[in-house]
Amino acid sequence: MTDIRARPLDAAAFAPFGQVIAAAGAPDVWINGGRCGRFHDLAPPDIVDGRAGISLFQTSLTALPYSFDMVERHPRGSQAFLPMSHDGFLVIVAPDTGGTPGQPLAFLTAPGQGVSIGRGVWHGVLTALTGSGLFAVVDRVGPGPNLEEFRLTGSYRVVR
Amino acid sequence: MTDIRARPLDAAAFAPFGQVIAAAGAPDVWINGGRCGRFHDLAPPDIVDGRAGISLFQTSLTALPYSFDMVERHPRGSQAFLPMSHDGFLVIVAPDTGGTPGQPLAFLTAPGQGVSIGRGVWHGVLTALTGSGLFAVVDRVGPGPNLEEFRLTGSYRVVR
Repeated sequence: MTDIRARPLDAAAFAPFGQVIAAAGAPDVWINGGRCGRFHDLAPPDIVDGRAGISLFQTSLTALPYSFDMVERHPRGSQAFLPMSHDGFLVIVAPDTGGTPGQPLAFLTAPGQGVSIGRGVWHGVLTALTGSGLFAVVDRVGPGPNLEEFRLTGSYRVVR
Repeated sequence: MTDIRARPLDAAAFAPFGQVIAAAGAPDVWINGGRCGRFHDLAPPDIVDGRAGISLFQTSLTALPYSFDMVERHPRGSQAFLPMSHDGFLVIVAPDTGGTPGQPLAFLTAPGQGVSIGRGVWHGVLTALTGSGLFAVVDRVGPGPNLEEFRLTGSYRVVR
């Protein structure tokens, strides 16, 4: 069992794995007579052989410490997770090392943040810690397989 | 001033204007070892001459009664609104009557519900009543104009 410390989600540290989707800094444009800021096109979907679709995921909640021994990836599309309650969640990703996942990393999002996991990036399953457990997911809709699962050698435990 | 009573969002009543995005009934598939239900592809983006993008809207809050005298539409793309806090919001739409909007309707979503406004459907600006005012928006990213605004003759007031 290897412990992994969850770190606050940081756009630079997360960049190799995807994008942080957050209303950070000044909006790209003010709309609706100045009442609403638009933060534009924060994570362009990267979809092969299909199109972007909008789905909802309703997951049960997870507590820390959280143990896992599996990661997965989607070779044909990025996958954006947008929490539908004002809660942070846990994001587990791993670098690719010649076709298999290397040492996983764990990030804790802040309330109001989503993430897009890049196409083909190893990641853990959706892990909500608090809130409704309801997420909007923008990912690939299309024919054919789009899931690779990998059983890790040894298990990992995410701690605060 | 014409009063409009806001009604609870109902998929059948809303169907002429777009889709309700909600985790209603049984999920289409159970994933993550049965811990997570996927409600699949609830509102396929309808995009002309562009692609679907993910943006965030941060709006100030609105109170009822709410008065307005303008609606808008996007001829080149549908627009999905997904609240990022567990709160309902107000959705104003209007039928098209020969190129101009007819009598508006107002719907109140339940917490955990989003909507997709159909391509070319007249609607009011984003109106959040409670919560963070933060929404994920999936709409068209592409070149050229995609906004028509229409100043109504007389103003309307949404009441409970």
